[in-house]
Order: sequence, then C-alpha cells, then structure tokens
Amino acid sequence: MTKLYLGEDLLASGFIEGLCQKFTGKKVVIAETLLQKLYGMDLARRIKAERVTLPQGEAAKTFASLQGVLNTLFSLGCDRDTLLIALGGGATLDLVGFVASIYLRGVATIFLPTTLLAMVDASIGGKNGIDTAFGKNLVGTLYSPEAIVVDKAFLKTLPCKEKLMGLMEVLKLALVWDRDLWELCKGETHLWIERAIQGKIEIVEKDPTEKGLRRILNFGHTVGHALEKITDYRLAHGEAVALGCLAESYLSFYLGILPAPVLNEIVQRYTAYDFKLPREATLKALKEAMRYDKKQTLGKTRVVVIEDIGKVLSCEGNFCLEIEDEVLEAMWQWMEENYGRHEGEPFSGAARRGVDTSL
Amino acid sequence: MTKLYLGEDLLASGFIEGLCQKFTGKKVVIAETLLQKLYGMDLARRIKAERVTLPQGEAAKTFASLQGVLNTLFSLGCDRDTLLIALGGGATLDLVGFVASIYLRGVATIFLPTTLLAMVDASIGGKNGIDTAFGKNLVGTLYSPEAIVVDKAFLKTLPCKEKLMGLMEVLKLALVWDRDLWELCKGETHLWIERAIQGKIEIVEKDPTEKGLRRILNFGHTVGHALEKITDYRLAHGEAVALGCLAESYLSFYLGILPAPVLNEIVQRYTAYDFKLPREATLKALKEAMRYDKKQTLGKTRVVVIEDIGKVLSCEGNFCLEIEDEVLEAMWQWMEENYGRHEGEPFSGAARRGVDTSL
Repeated sequence: MTKLYLGEDLLASGFIEGLCQKFTGKKVVIAETLLQKLYGMDLARRIKAERVTLPQGEAAKTFASLQGVLNTLFSLGCDRDTLLIALGGGATLDLVGFVASIYLRGVATIFLPTTLLAMVDASIGGKNGIDTAFGKNLVGTLYSPEAIVVDKAFLKTLPCKEKLMGLMEVLKLALVWDRDLWELCKGETHLWIERAIQGKIEIVEKDPTEKGLRRILNFGHTVGHALEKITDYRLAHGEAVALGCLAESYLSFYLGILPAPVLNEIVQRYTAYDFKLPREATLKALKEAMRYDKKQTLGKTRVVVIEDIGKVLSCEGNFCLEIEDEVLEAMWQWMEENYGRHEGEPFSGAARRGVDTSL
Repeated sequence: MTKLYLGEDLLASGFIEGLCQKFTGKKVVIAETLLQKLYGMDLARRIKAERVTLPQGEAAKTFASLQGVLNTLFSLGCDRDTLLIALGGGATLDLVGFVASIYLRGVATIFLPTTLLAMVDASIGGKNGIDTAFGKNLVGTLYSPEAIVVDKAFLKTLPCKEKLMGLMEVLKLALVWDRDLWELCKGETHLWIERAIQGKIEIVEKDPTEKGLRRILNFGHTVGHALEKITDYRLAHGEAVALGCLAESYLSFYLGILPAPVLNEIVQRYTAYDFKLPREATLKALKEAMRYDKKQTLGKTRVVVIEDIGKVLSCEGNFCLEIEDEVLEAMWQWMEENYGRHEGEPFSGAARRGVDTSL
C-alpha cells in the first residue's frame, strides 16, 4: 500500500532522510538536469544516493531513455533492494514508475512530485508509461510506489502556467466526482490540494485496474489526448484537458444528459483562461488521432458522460459510452464555433499570457 | 486466474478455436519463423488472427525485438481487447508475456508451449522478461496468461536434446519439492509431466511474488545462470541447471545439511548425462557472472540449500542462505575435480552426443 505524506518543506526538513532509512539497499535519485542541480545533488549527498539524470520533459519518456536508465542502473550494480527516488513532474514519475516496475521484475520507488499536476494527478494511481510513435503512454504498467511525498514548498517557485495546468486536472476531477471541490478550487491552492489528492485516491482505490469507476478520470481526455497528439504535444496537457472537458461537457449536453444551465456554468468557469483550439485541429485530424486511444475498442470511440458537476453517468458500471461519428461531428462544430482561433491570434490564451489566476 | 489445459492434439483438434471464441477482440499469433510455418499460419487462418514472427531463440528477447513487436501491434491497430497467442518455447513465452504486460498497460495472452522445458517450467508462474548486456531476464514483469494450453502432441516431434533439457528442470523440481517425482521421472514423459506441472503450480500459488517459498525453484540456478552467462549462452539452460544442481547439492553437503549418501544418489542420477563444465568456466568468471544475479542483495551470494531429495532448508521462511566466498571456492574445487573437462573433449556430454535417455 502506497503511503502518502503531504506537508510543507518535507524535502528541506530532513523528513526524506527518515523515510529512506528503512530502505537498506542502494538508493538512486532520478531527476531531469535542472532539478538535479536545484535539489537532487543535495538530496543524494544527504541520503548517500547515486544520481541518474533524465532529459527535460517528454524526451525522458522514449524507448531510448528507458533503455539508457535501465543500463545505468545495472552499471551501478543496483539489485532488488534498490530504492529509486523520482524527483520531478509527470514525465519523470511516469518513466521512473515504469523502470521500477520492470527492473529485475520490480524494485521499490518513492515519488517526489515537483509540479501541481504531478502532485494531484500523475503521482497517484500507479499508472506509468512511455510514449511511442503511435501516441503517449502507450507502453507501461500499473505499479504502486512505496510512498508519495507531496512537498508544498515546490508550489512557491512553480511558474504560474504550471499551476494553471495542475488546476485544469483538478477541475476535471471536480466535474466527475466532487461538486464541493469545484467551488473550493476557486480559492487558493493550499485550501483544496489535499481534497483533490484524496479524491483521486478514493477513485483509484475503488477500481485500481480501471475496469469501471476509474474510467471517470478519463473525462476530457478522449478529446484532450487527441488534441495533444495533433499538435505533436506542443499543446500542454492541462490546456488539452481543459479543451477536452469543454468538448465532452458539450457532448454530455448534446446527448441530452447534462442540462443546459450546468453546461453554461462549466463554460463560464473556463472563460477566464481563454483557451483556444490549436490551429492544426481539424475534425479529420481529431478522428485520426483518436484511433490509438487506449480507451478505444473495436474502433469505437468511448467517452465519459456527465449528468451534473460532480456526477458521472454510470452506464451500468461501465462509466463510458460508445458514440457515433455524428455526435463527434456535432461536438466538433460547437468547439470550432466557440473555441476556434482567428487569424493572427497567439497559440494559446491565458496560459501563454501569464494571466494570474489567483492560485 | 490462469487456466491450465493439458492434453493430446489440443492444437489440431479445434480445442484452441473454442478457447479463443470468448475473446472478441483482435487476435495475434506470435511465434518464431519455423513454428509460424509449421503451426502458426494454419492456426492464424482458423481463428482469423494476425501473425507476428520472432527471430529464433534468445534473439527474440532483446530490447530491439521488444520494441519491434510493440510497434507491429500498434501498426495492426491492436487495442486493449487484443489477445496475444504465444506459440513456442521459453524465449517466445518470455517475450510475449512481457509484451502482453506492458502493451497499453496489459492485454490478454494465451501460452501454447511447444517444448518440454516451456511446458513444465517457463509457461508457469508468470515470470517473463528480456535480456540485457548485463544478463538474462533482467528486465521483465510478473504477469499471468489467461490460459496455458499444454499439447503433448508437440513432444512427439521434439528433438531428444530438447526433451533432456526439460527433464533437467523437472529433476530440479523433484530435488526441492517432490521425492516421488524424482522416482517417477525415471520413466516416460507422459507418466510425470502432469505431476511436474502441478508441482510448480502449487509452489507458485503459495508465493506468487517470490517473497519466500517460490525461491526454492532457484535451486541450481545461482550457479546455472552464471555458467550460461560465462559461455555467452552457448551452454543450454537445462545443461547449466543440471550442473548447477550438482554444484548446489555439493554445497548443501559441504554445509553439513545434505547427508553424504543422498549426495551420492544425486550424483549417480546425473552420471548418465555426462555433463561437463564449459571450458571458459573459472572461479573468477563464476564470481563475476554472479554479480548480476537477481537473487543477490548487497553483494552477497544467496543459494537454496537442500536437506534431502524433495526437501529444502527453510531458513525461517527465507528458503535461501547467504554463503561466504570460502564455501563457493570449496564447491568450485569439487566441481572441477568431478566435472572438469579434459583436453580435447567435446563441448558437451550426452546432450551433444544424442544419447537416448528413454524419455
């Protein structure tokens, strides 16, 4: 069972040293270049760990990077008692989680998420993976870390855009699970971060292998993942998920399940961020990009449908619905009308312009 | 839970078609070139499956091969409902098991072992993996197939050496678990194959994640794996395990745990096969090769120790013992004296000379 520790200055205060003491084997701090410099080197010195440095961002999640990290661990003589400490954002946690699950058929790992998105989402639930030419996270496992250490001190220095991207994943969670969280996260991060983490943990514990309930976390992601793919991942995940939540909220309305006033409330909430569809996004590109969605089976597109803010349509425990092309087309038309980009507009809205969203 | 089917002509009789019917998704038969020609093409036609062809033997278990198979499955449009049918020996099952466990975070697989070794050993227990420059099976997962179909018809055309290699794994199982099996497997294969499979299943079910009891299956493998590695895997696995069982039986005797008459009985049993140590095997090479053994922790060598045929020393539930260099050296001296190779002798004994061992 994964242990969750949430607090302020857990890295600086010596809490990590205490946590690592019960692991008697070799320790390895894995992080990308900048985080190694800022925190990794000092941490590794304090807990007498080796260090492995990853490339920045999604570049860490390639086959070549995976093979490189595995070989480095063998070179270091890491055995089954080894503890891998993943320090970073979602990409780092995804790669290290996968490595931990397959190195000698499984070694222990501790996650130290450094972004809001990783704290509330990527670190929880055991999903990991790498990208292939066919899409993101297509190869991976479900594997639980020994512990997740959420140190809120990282939020102080996190760029505004990064916070906004994390908030988008929290808004999605609120839409499918928790009406109170929807209200709460209008306030400051420290008021709702714990509730958001607990929400995701509750869902994941009820359905760890995603046979039913856990699927609700994919709300906004069918369209969101496709948008990321169309832009070759220049569109940030949070922004893609926000646009996906809008699209799939409209879809829920179009199917007659989500009432119009609630759709309006949702649309209103996202207005401040001023997200726009990426220029490359056409209906044809969207359909093509959806082909390799992990939720697809037998070529049918499946989406999660909401009845209300905080409430998902159960579909007899399947928590997703197969939709026809015609529905997809209606949804896309609405998206283009409301979130289409005019000539000369910048790539992104609020996120790029650094709007302070009072996080 | 994995279902086991054991019988004659299960592949030819249409049994497989029935079994595959409950899987509604795409099906893919994965096998190496020769087996594809002999059985795979016909099977794929009958169950309307795609085919993926692997290189022969351990070449299937490289990173490049893994990546190639994953990409082929994506190209074929395989989704989460896909069923992978692994047709082959241990190498094929190891690779396909690993692929199934990480493709879209897990798809279903059915194992169709075609060698005795794969039937009694590799197919059972969920261990899979690929090789790295640092050793065999160092990267992998524990993942259970939906079903294992043991078709005894394959044994009829199996080369004598292949049968012998399977028998060596069964003798090991008998040494650590089942005195009656030790006697039984002096007779023909069909008299003991089911008992051998059941024995391994019992052990694995009591300890699926190898925290205790399952470790007894590593008897003979600490030395055996090292010997394989020293010869760059020219030494067959079964032969390496046989030599390993002899070495670790002597070690059990040297530690005062296995009585001399029982050691003699074991040594007698293996005499007919006339296995010899590979020429490259020196004590130095052995120690170096053991460094990356998965059972090693903190640089100490761990071995399974037997008290009698069919009975392992429990070591308070650890089922393995850390040994000192001095013990390893004494064991090696005995091995060289009894199984050393004289100038001009062929690479291998009975196995190479094709001695009929009345299987």
